[in-house]
Amino acid sequence: MTIPATTATDFRSESVRSLYDQLILHLKGLSHLKGINGILRWDQEVMMPKKAAAARAAQLSTLAGLTHEKKTSPILGALLDELEYRITTEDLSPALNPYELANIRLARKDYQEETLLPTELVKNIAALNSKAVVAWVEARKESEFSKFAPFLEDQVKILRQKVAYKMKGGVCEDARLINQKARASLGLSDEDACYKGYYQVLLDSFEPGFKDDHLQALFSDLKEHLVPLIAKIREKNFQHDNSYIEGDFDIKRQTEFTHSISKLIGFDTDAGRLDISTHPFTGGAHPTDVRMTTRYIINKLKEGITATVHETGHSLYEQGRNREYVDTPVSRALSLGVHESQSLLWERMVMLNKPFWTYTLPLLKEQFAEHESLQSITVDQFYNAFNRVQSGFIRFESDELTYPMHIILRYEIEKALIEGDIEVADVPAHWSAKVKEYLGLEVTEDRLGCLQDIHWSSSAIGYFPTYTLGSIYAVQIYTHAKEKIPDLEEHLARGEFHVLKEWLNKNVHEQGSLRESGDDLVFDLTGKHLDSSLYVKYLTDKYTAIYGL
Amino acid sequence: MTIPATTATDFRSESVRSLYDQLILHLKGLSHLKGINGILRWDQEVMMPKKAAAARAAQLSTLAGLTHEKKTSPILGALLDELEYRITTEDLSPALNPYELANIRLARKDYQEETLLPTELVKNIAALNSKAVVAWVEARKESEFSKFAPFLEDQVKILRQKVAYKMKGGVCEDARLINQKARASLGLSDEDACYKGYYQVLLDSFEPGFKDDHLQALFSDLKEHLVPLIAKIREKNFQHDNSYIEGDFDIKRQTEFTHSISKLIGFDTDAGRLDISTHPFTGGAHPTDVRMTTRYIINKLKEGITATVHETGHSLYEQGRNREYVDTPVSRALSLGVHESQSLLWERMVMLNKPFWTYTLPLLKEQFAEHESLQSITVDQFYNAFNRVQSGFIRFESDELTYPMHIILRYEIEKALIEGDIEVADVPAHWSAKVKEYLGLEVTEDRLGCLQDIHWSSSAIGYFPTYTLGSIYAVQIYTHAKEKIPDLEEHLARGEFHVLKEWLNKNVHEQGSLRESGDDLVFDLTGKHLDSSLYVKYLTDKYTAIYGL
Repeated sequence: MTIPATTATDFRSESVRSLYDQLILHLKGLSHLKGINGILRWDQEVMMPKKAAAARAAQLSTLAGLTHEKKTSPILGALLDELEYRITTEDLSPALNPYELANIRLARKDYQEETLLPTELVKNIAALNSKAVVAWVEARKESEFSKFAPFLEDQVKILRQKVAYKMKGGVCEDARLINQKARASLGLSDEDACYKGYYQVLLDSFEPGFKDDHLQALFSDLKEHLVPLIAKIREKNFQHDNSYIEGDFDIKRQTEFTHSISKLIGFDTDAGRLDISTHPFTGGAHPTDVRMTTRYIINKLKEGITATVHETGHSLYEQGRNREYVDTPVSRALSLGVHESQSLLWERMVMLNKPFWTYTLPLLKEQFAEHESLQSITVDQFYNAFNRVQSGFIRFESDELTYPMHIILRYEIEKALIEGDIEVADVPAHWSAKVKEYLGLEVTEDRLGCLQDIHWSSSAIGYFPTYTLGSIYAVQIYTHAKEKIPDLEEHLARGEFHVLKEWLNKNVHEQGSLRESGDDLVFDLTGKHLDSSLYVKYLTDKYTAIYGL
Repeated sequence: MTIPATTATDFRSESVRSLYDQLILHLKGLSHLKGINGILRWDQEVMMPKKAAAARAAQLSTLAGLTHEKKTSPILGALLDELEYRITTEDLSPALNPYELANIRLARKDYQEETLLPTELVKNIAALNSKAVVAWVEARKESEFSKFAPFLEDQVKILRQKVAYKMKGGVCEDARLINQKARASLGLSDEDACYKGYYQVLLDSFEPGFKDDHLQALFSDLKEHLVPLIAKIREKNFQHDNSYIEGDFDIKRQTEFTHSISKLIGFDTDAGRLDISTHPFTGGAHPTDVRMTTRYIINKLKEGITATVHETGHSLYEQGRNREYVDTPVSRALSLGVHESQSLLWERMVMLNKPFWTYTLPLLKEQFAEHESLQSITVDQFYNAFNRVQSGFIRFESDELTYPMHIILRYEIEKALIEGDIEVADVPAHWSAKVKEYLGLEVTEDRLGCLQDIHWSSSAIGYFPTYTLGSIYAVQIYTHAKEKIPDLEEHLARGEFHVLKEWLNKNVHEQGSLRESGDDLVFDLTGKHLDSSLYVKYLTDKYTAIYGL
């Protein structure tokens, strides 16, 4: 038997620099394992032969076990304890720079998250997810919510347990305060069930540091302004012609076109790959090894372009991560919402805009020369066709104007579920009422309603808001970029996308997780907290013009 | 600090079955890590973007570190000690079957190999290999052996150190006896340098259990019979026409043809992939996830077909590994030589033979319909063209008749080097003399001589013989298959390759590492030890007919 030679006591005599270096060595090992996991996941979706599924699951499980051991190793804990002790007793800023201090903060948070849940609970969550996903697939196929409901009940219960452990462990101190305040105002004791503030903790794991009350304020504002705008367009009952992009577009030529667009925007094909998968995603192992995927459908030209530009946005963030602090926590993406802001900025602010097509429409026409009806189309016509608004039931098929409504209704329902304001059985009714109110549609089937998304079956409550946070970040960041970069849109109209890419590299990508929240990043960059007004103005101006409201 | 709770003493009260199950759990974890390594290596050669090289090296190094920890874990050692104790004190065969007993034997051997070298030596070997490969690339480019010689000196020295540790650790007991006997006959003490028997230890790590004196006997016999045969063909100074396979063959259609051949032979594309890489290889993660590669050159049709069939042979072995004992040592390939026997059996016994082309030549003609000169070619003509013999300098470009000569000369030189019978400086002279004697050629450049192969720069001394052992195994196994399967070659001529594949699955692939050497496998299968006479007869008959000797 060997016993690790170093204990916390031994660290007392070491310099902060030496402790930090030991921490980084450990964290780099963890980053390598995460990178390996990224390649295996990519391979699974893109390359793996189908009979290998069971073997791959076993390999991933062994890797996860080793990663967990390394994440919870006593040496790591002792190092972090000692560094924490130093932070409380001396000023570390002469010894460590802000990036290094952020690494300690992030490592502590990761360690805490990894160690504070009982192993039994972690296993139960994994087991429930496996069963619940299968049940969800089945329930959705039969469009029968009642078949999924018991699993959603269990998810709510188990997530509440998880939150309780996290609160007790000191994660999201503000959520604990919200809970205490609620108990006090309701006259409840510590033993009484009360789940107020619980959603904040779930949100925090996807969007670190973002406050639920801030989110609620943003979403209220969006509802107030966008619901009437969507209604106006619906009532206008008019659509721009898009017949010239509805035909069949050869897949090979779609592939060539989107690959060239992706490179033009700035994707470095020597530091990443673009392949095909059923569901487009961006993954990989390292800023020098980014793996993104897209998909093509012969009669849906717009989908292939949109998916590729979207994933390219994610990939630029990944490729642009801070190289000086590579393989350490501070170099990682700040949050899901900020990651989504980078994909949406390129997809919506850039690709769904006129300067982009001023440059690329001639290329598209050339690539699809046999599509005669396309050849005479102007940039304005194309822009109108690509930006058609149409309320629908399915979130991921939605346009940028109706999309936030899909998110807001999910947020309202999942928060009310977790915090005990509604019951699982009532979900379909709430869903229908909100779809009617926000989008003017009648939900006729659970399949098209509350059963459409996988998230709730796999414990991902608190995830949905990050999609719309991403759009709000994107507008605020892009608006600021336009102020800072002279003639930005003239550059884009000349295909000089590197101007924007490099600005984002410096102001977003290389910043990584230096700050504690996406809101802090936006505040330091633009001088304002995240604010829905720019987003509302962007959508209102754009669609008022497109639909002549 | 946590201390593993279980020690060897605690195992004393457990049943053999329980100990075995714990061992298997540990070994399966190791197999998963090996599988992950296989996917990462494949990805590196086939998919990885070029800037990712450094990141991948770091990931592989972290994975190797964790694998080493797991391979040398005290718990594993204690489990093996206890099982070893049980084996010496009781009869385990009622509790464990032969596959299970083999797993214990192999796990012990692996543990021993992994633990008996000092960490310092392992690091020094890795460091030397890195430097030596770079030096070899440089020396080969300049065709200047003296630039590589110091690194080869170091390789010889460090490999002797490795062997000494292994001998002391009880690996290859027979090699230690050879050494003792040599010392005695030379009147040397234990302190005097004497390297007799050292080659046996190196050979053992590539071809477990195979005896160097057996190898030497086989190679002497080959030299005796093949050198005159090669000379006769050279003196005949005649070549069959192969102009019709020398032109440009469209790469896309080569790809389609070889993929269809590979599937026809029995490669399961749902349990593996066939891709392209600079150097063809077979790797992957599991019998359900085999990754093989090939390559195509527009004016070298034969190369693409040969490489694909060769790798398909390796892949059938991998896909055919015992599923009941999957992820445990007994299911792995027995040795490099036996692995090579499976690729060579399909490449030479099958593909370089008439029954194969009886079925596939019509398919080839159809696939390349625009090659008019090919259309009138008969199977006999094609067979003669595909089997041209031509002495050359380069091992991997050689035909099946001259290939063994390249191996034998390397074997003789590397063995003499390790055992101290020649000096590094004399290698080029020995090389030239042997090439002259065996192949009738004058080596004019080191580049075409002793600098052509990477093996010696990366510690792979003892590896070369496995190539020719593979051919000898292949002939003996195929000859036996013909005796056992009625009308085997009639089946092949009808494209019914599954008959042979299934026989190999059962008699070779599923046998895995149940036996202690390739010779044991061949003996149990054919009733004879590995014997060069069948191989000599095969080559003599075949090439006497082709060249009308």
